[in-house]
Amino acid sequence: MTSRKYVYFFGEGTKEMKKLLGGKGANLSEMTNIGLPVPLGFTITTEVCNLFYDLGERYPEGLDGQIDGNLKKLEDKMGMSFKDYKNPLLVSVRSGAAISMPGMMDTVLNLGLNDKTVKSLIDKTNNERFCWDSYRRFIQMFGDVVMNVEHKKFEKAIQAKKDEKGVKFDTQLTADDLKELVEDYKKIIKNEKGRSFPQDPREQLQMSMDAVFKSWNNKRAIAYRNIHDIPHNLGTAVNVQAMVFGNMGEDSGTGVAFTRNPSTGENKVYGEYLINAQGEDVVAGIRTPKPISKLKDEMPDIYKQLIGICKKLEEHYRDTQDMEFTIQKGNLYMLQTRTGKRTAAAALQIAVDMVNEELIDIKTAVMRIEPEQLDQMLHKQLDKKAKEKGQLIGKGLPASPGAAVGKVAFDADSAVEESKKENVILVRTETSPEDIQGMAVAQGILTARGGMTSHAAVVARGMGKCCVAGCEDIKVFEAKQYFLVNGNKIKYGDWITLDGSTGEVFLGKIPVVDPEITRNFEIFMGWVDKYRKIGVRANADTPVDSEVALKFGAEGIGLCRTEHMFFEADRIKAVRKMIVASSKKERKKALMELLPMQRKDFIEIFKAMKNLPVTIRLLDPPLHEFLPKEEEDIKEIAGELGIEAEELKATINSLHEMNPMLGHRGCRLSITFPEILEMQTRAIFEAAAKLTKEGYKIIPEVMIPLVGIVEEIKILKKQIINIADKVMKESGTKFNYKVGTMIEIPRACVTADEIASEAEFFSFGTNDLTQLTFGYSRDDSGKFLPDYIEKGVLAKDPFATIDKKGVGKLVEIAVEKGRKVRKDLKIGICGEHGGDPDSVEFCHKIGLDYVSCSPYRIPIAKIAAAQAAIKEEENKA
Amino acid sequence: MTSRKYVYFFGEGTKEMKKLLGGKGANLSEMTNIGLPVPLGFTITTEVCNLFYDLGERYPEGLDGQIDGNLKKLEDKMGMSFKDYKNPLLVSVRSGAAISMPGMMDTVLNLGLNDKTVKSLIDKTNNERFCWDSYRRFIQMFGDVVMNVEHKKFEKAIQAKKDEKGVKFDTQLTADDLKELVEDYKKIIKNEKGRSFPQDPREQLQMSMDAVFKSWNNKRAIAYRNIHDIPHNLGTAVNVQAMVFGNMGEDSGTGVAFTRNPSTGENKVYGEYLINAQGEDVVAGIRTPKPISKLKDEMPDIYKQLIGICKKLEEHYRDTQDMEFTIQKGNLYMLQTRTGKRTAAAALQIAVDMVNEELIDIKTAVMRIEPEQLDQMLHKQLDKKAKEKGQLIGKGLPASPGAAVGKVAFDADSAVEESKKENVILVRTETSPEDIQGMAVAQGILTARGGMTSHAAVVARGMGKCCVAGCEDIKVFEAKQYFLVNGNKIKYGDWITLDGSTGEVFLGKIPVVDPEITRNFEIFMGWVDKYRKIGVRANADTPVDSEVALKFGAEGIGLCRTEHMFFEADRIKAVRKMIVASSKKERKKALMELLPMQRKDFIEIFKAMKNLPVTIRLLDPPLHEFLPKEEEDIKEIAGELGIEAEELKATINSLHEMNPMLGHRGCRLSITFPEILEMQTRAIFEAAAKLTKEGYKIIPEVMIPLVGIVEEIKILKKQIINIADKVMKESGTKFNYKVGTMIEIPRACVTADEIASEAEFFSFGTNDLTQLTFGYSRDDSGKFLPDYIEKGVLAKDPFATIDKKGVGKLVEIAVEKGRKVRKDLKIGICGEHGGDPDSVEFCHKIGLDYVSCSPYRIPIAKIAAAQAAIKEEENKA
Repeated sequence: MTSRKYVYFFGEGTKEMKKLLGGKGANLSEMTNIGLPVPLGFTITTEVCNLFYDLGERYPEGLDGQIDGNLKKLEDKMGMSFKDYKNPLLVSVRSGAAISMPGMMDTVLNLGLNDKTVKSLIDKTNNERFCWDSYRRFIQMFGDVVMNVEHKKFEKAIQAKKDEKGVKFDTQLTADDLKELVEDYKKIIKNEKGRSFPQDPREQLQMSMDAVFKSWNNKRAIAYRNIHDIPHNLGTAVNVQAMVFGNMGEDSGTGVAFTRNPSTGENKVYGEYLINAQGEDVVAGIRTPKPISKLKDEMPDIYKQLIGICKKLEEHYRDTQDMEFTIQKGNLYMLQTRTGKRTAAAALQIAVDMVNEELIDIKTAVMRIEPEQLDQMLHKQLDKKAKEKGQLIGKGLPASPGAAVGKVAFDADSAVEESKKENVILVRTETSPEDIQGMAVAQGILTARGGMTSHAAVVARGMGKCCVAGCEDIKVFEAKQYFLVNGNKIKYGDWITLDGSTGEVFLGKIPVVDPEITRNFEIFMGWVDKYRKIGVRANADTPVDSEVALKFGAEGIGLCRTEHMFFEADRIKAVRKMIVASSKKERKKALMELLPMQRKDFIEIFKAMKNLPVTIRLLDPPLHEFLPKEEEDIKEIAGELGIEAEELKATINSLHEMNPMLGHRGCRLSITFPEILEMQTRAIFEAAAKLTKEGYKIIPEVMIPLVGIVEEIKILKKQIINIADKVMKESGTKFNYKVGTMIEIPRACVTADEIASEAEFFSFGTNDLTQLTFGYSRDDSGKFLPDYIEKGVLAKDPFATIDKKGVGKLVEIAVEKGRKVRKDLKIGICGEHGGDPDSVEFCHKIGLDYVSCSPYRIPIAKIAAAQAAIKEEENKA
Repeated sequence: MTSRKYVYFFGEGTKEMKKLLGGKGANLSEMTNIGLPVPLGFTITTEVCNLFYDLGERYPEGLDGQIDGNLKKLEDKMGMSFKDYKNPLLVSVRSGAAISMPGMMDTVLNLGLNDKTVKSLIDKTNNERFCWDSYRRFIQMFGDVVMNVEHKKFEKAIQAKKDEKGVKFDTQLTADDLKELVEDYKKIIKNEKGRSFPQDPREQLQMSMDAVFKSWNNKRAIAYRNIHDIPHNLGTAVNVQAMVFGNMGEDSGTGVAFTRNPSTGENKVYGEYLINAQGEDVVAGIRTPKPISKLKDEMPDIYKQLIGICKKLEEHYRDTQDMEFTIQKGNLYMLQTRTGKRTAAAALQIAVDMVNEELIDIKTAVMRIEPEQLDQMLHKQLDKKAKEKGQLIGKGLPASPGAAVGKVAFDADSAVEESKKENVILVRTETSPEDIQGMAVAQGILTARGGMTSHAAVVARGMGKCCVAGCEDIKVFEAKQYFLVNGNKIKYGDWITLDGSTGEVFLGKIPVVDPEITRNFEIFMGWVDKYRKIGVRANADTPVDSEVALKFGAEGIGLCRTEHMFFEADRIKAVRKMIVASSKKERKKALMELLPMQRKDFIEIFKAMKNLPVTIRLLDPPLHEFLPKEEEDIKEIAGELGIEAEELKATINSLHEMNPMLGHRGCRLSITFPEILEMQTRAIFEAAAKLTKEGYKIIPEVMIPLVGIVEEIKILKKQIINIADKVMKESGTKFNYKVGTMIEIPRACVTADEIASEAEFFSFGTNDLTQLTFGYSRDDSGKFLPDYIEKGVLAKDPFATIDKKGVGKLVEIAVEKGRKVRKDLKIGICGEHGGDPDSVEFCHKIGLDYVSCSPYRIPIAKIAAAQAAIKEEENKA
């Protein structure tokens, strides 16, 4: 019986065999196949890794024989051997998984060196110091990685040697020093592990292979996979490759190259190299590498060869490549190639260029952009160089991307005041709807508490404004007008800088770079729209928001939160009057004050949106959110309202809720106070009537929030229809409108068939749905969610990316039940997830009609939607 | 083509035809069939009612003919006629649905009277006053009910007549007065409606029939059906029956009778009657009716006949009957029979007696008891007579049944102090776990806020203690030690009385009657256990609870809330130390103090439960619940803990949550602080080990609360197993145990298959599941739930009876998914619903293994379970 093929000599595999050979192994084979100069070697498959674990850390039968066979082939081709101490074979042993996990797993270099072969190497290279250094590095690496000797033991020994010799740098140690160090190292291993450093290269290889396979499941690798959503059962391959040396003299060298510029995308080879050096030296930073263009002068042949290889690789892979190479005594060797990482701008440039060069088709180009990456392009960024020199004082959650520089203010009023003179950053323990005005004038927002979907984060993202939330390092004393952070006391008016894309907080001002919408961006978005199947709308609450949304390509408004209009200075008073009203009559009077303002809002929004659909959500938050909290404010506002402070306090107290998220809000308010719903729908319909007369074709979509029971929508829809009829009669016009509901309560999902019998559209409010499905308050989950993600209980923050198994399952149930009853039910999503690529793909898959997101996320959502459509098409084919 | 049969002459139907003929009609037919003296008549079917609505308030073809045919038959048999003004036929027209809706629909009596027939009647009866009175009553009833003339118009006219005559009572008006009144009444109708009171009896009949059918959908009837869960499409029948008169002299009379005593169940005819009176007179209360035994003396023949009829009816219906009868000139007529309502004690007595009498079998007896009714028997009750004289000062929700008398106390400490001298009632705005000690010593609890499942309500029910919750009438000033209620100021130490079964609050002391477990109860529960398929366990947190649970027949503990043990005086300090600990080491030290106490608890509970299964839930509430809230207490406790008040305040502040219900609680605590879980499981297993050595066979069931993600239970189960292994090794014993989870998060339901791969049992925590499925906080829903139920948005409080469509659907999904992965998965329910009959039936239907409820609800749950099993068996057969 012959066993499976566990080992592939370079050239036996192809680039498509990544899963079996890992990314590195597959590409080494591929490069060999297309005739590039790759040092010989072989790959032990990822399958062996998985079997290794399945068999309880033992290898499958037949593997040893295959390794020996391939080693023999390698020795024969190289004319070198593990056993031939005169002409010894030296190899590297490297990990390589299907998905790159840089630095997570172990690597062993110079394997094959021992007390004898080190001498042959000296004979061959005539460089005693290099050889002893290589040997001591190998022992150190082997001791550390393979034999688990504490790293610091070796560090201590080398330090002792330097002290003894009175030198400062490793490079100042002589060949003899290093030779002595080799003996010291060997002693350390013997002492620590009770066994000697193995002199037999075959044994060295076996032990290194064990170590690499075991490193697949080391802690940091597991954590990395958790963070990056990489399955744990992929396994790593092991690549055994003949060593080449870039440090064999002035005709040797090492470097990295990109086929195109990874920052700008410019179609020109980019990279750097060092003469007479090994890869390590580049990393160590002792010598400064030279730009690749210099190579043209220093080694014109090698340069020409490298440029040729770049072209060949790009034509072959049809994407920008990131390569490692080594020059050994005038010979160029390719050690690695992989898809090159790039900035968003570069990614766009490359995609557009490659389509023009006919290297790739448009569909491929669309798939090439990581949607999330685009976010950088749509927001201000800190100047990179300046940022490196900035004084970092704290780090919070990257709650809303972009950069902001401003003077610190601690409340909305002073933020508004200060903003008339200077840029402002609003700093608060946590924000609440009272702070809206302050947030609106601020460049950025910094909070001490709250997660990625806290009030501050959600509102800031909606405004396209930089926000660092939940910065637990800081302690805010609003009343005293300062905050403490890691020993710094930052007072009102001090300058700080925020990086909302990383969560960093800096003291002082750091220059900011503005975003620009490039021609490439426009071309690219045109392509995206060709493939995209689902619509993309914006969450926009004001006429200004609406204009921004249109600029970013919104196809309508999926969520217009009417309550955000209530916080403006001229309205909040009427809103408060309405809330403290002691009778229905008084309440109606206060509402009548609001009516013309809301009507004006809607007229402007409808106009801005140019007949595109606009979904307006009726009042959602609990009423107490509109009332003041501080003693001071209560007194002031009671005065304004013409009532006693005690009375206002009593009202506030009576509205207090233990769990406001689960309280008297959403359509529950409309059931209790039908007059609020009446005012709002009247404002909507009067706006529609007016514009209809002016020739617009407005079809307002009235959305009832927080429906859990069909009777709720049944009752409220009847009232809405009633008001629409009245307005049409009064105005003498006819207009169409739709009445639908948010689906954000688990009960609405499982009774979606009933609800669809009344609702003309559904819009999933996945923020609330996630809260209720998990039982997490997004305001409080900061206490345990980070811990959950760190411990792998959750792979991702479910408020950022939709939880497909739980929340997604309920969404699917609702879609299925809803469409069963009403075939043409229009279904969208308007939670935060509407702008998350993974979630957009999910929405595409389950057949939603559109997603709605912050205006600034629209391009990202569109790309994600196009990619989802392309993927689906490809899966079908 | 002959049309369907829409009209049944009495005798053509049977008692089984309730759905078609309504309860009254079917029983009138049945009584006719078995030869009882029933005035002749016919029933127009409920089908006609439904057709009437389906056809837009028109009647089906062929109906008129059938009515005329039956009318003719009635006239012929009676020897009277609508048209024969000398010998006129008078009839009653009454509604009668399949399910009794007393007083909800309309009735017309004396139909057939007009200006001419009234005179014939005078000739026949020689009682002019009676005849004119009958006529004016008929016009009034007809005007009001059929023609929709405002009732008060007639009232005004009769008052005017009385004023004119200078008399006080209707009875003082003479025949002439009444004759004049008839004219006045006819004028009122003419004025109000523009048409005359119809003189044609056939027209009177037609209009009355219309009115009765329309009354099916009057507001109060719809509301009644909503409250009592009666479908709206049953429709009512109309019964047309020849009038008999109990007021035709001393040989006439009217009365009601029960075949057995409805209060005690004694097997002796019970009832009352009036000589020379109509049914109305009994209701009006002007004359006091006599007990039925007197009839034996007054009319021995009639009495004998009635007793015979009672016996015959009971043998025929095999249940206690509630009858109406009229004696007209020495002839007994039966006007109605139906199943007699009865008290719980009577119901048990009757069921047991009837089985002994071989009138019914045991299965039938089990079905005869309304489970909820039993509740009265298991709790203290206010003395009925004394209660009527009590001073009612307010009304709240009947949150936990029973009665309580005590001195008012406003906090736990003074309640404890006072309780050493006198009975105490704890009065608070709302309770929190801090109040547990006070609740434990109090006779009853009164709160101003919170619903049927507020903290106060749940804990009180668990303790079997009387509670009136959410009494919005009262305003509690805890700090000032008094409360206001409807103008009364009740101070610390004042006496009040609570009726937890009605929600009433009285000033002063009202005598209380103790419950007793009767022999009948024991016999009956024995029968119940024969038919019951699902288990019934108790929610019990202490050794004392466990003993009560066993007394009530618990088959184990389904929910032992470990945190309730934390509030006892000697423990709370250690708990607080644990919470404020600034390091893991400190926390562990505090936990080590708790370990021996928890172990002792578990030993005692296990012992009390005598090897029955005990499910122990790990710590569930957020930690801040254990910390003090008042400034005073904070200072005191900080002192006790040896820290600064500011530090304690900072800790409390850092633990503050916006929505604690959705916060850091349940298994999330165990993930963050594994040492808490370690202490608790160690206490459980050490208790098990100790008792195993003593010969007990304990199988503790460790329950992890609030699981939403399989990884949570995966991680925690591993820790639990680890501790179990350690304890077994340390103690040198072996014991079995199970690790399972509460299912109370919607996500757990839709991923129950994953969770079942780890959990060995499920227990539905339907309180939390209802909160999350609806998005209602049970602490706050009092703001809108009452409104929702009143407006018919919800038929019932979903915290009291499980919402089958929403919450129930998720439960079903979880059961199905869970059992798919683990066939023998034991599934129970431990929310408040475990003691609600409707919910128990649901649990039976979907195949749960057991329900768990407050010890005091166990008999109720058992009866509900038995009835569900019997119903299922009958449905199958």
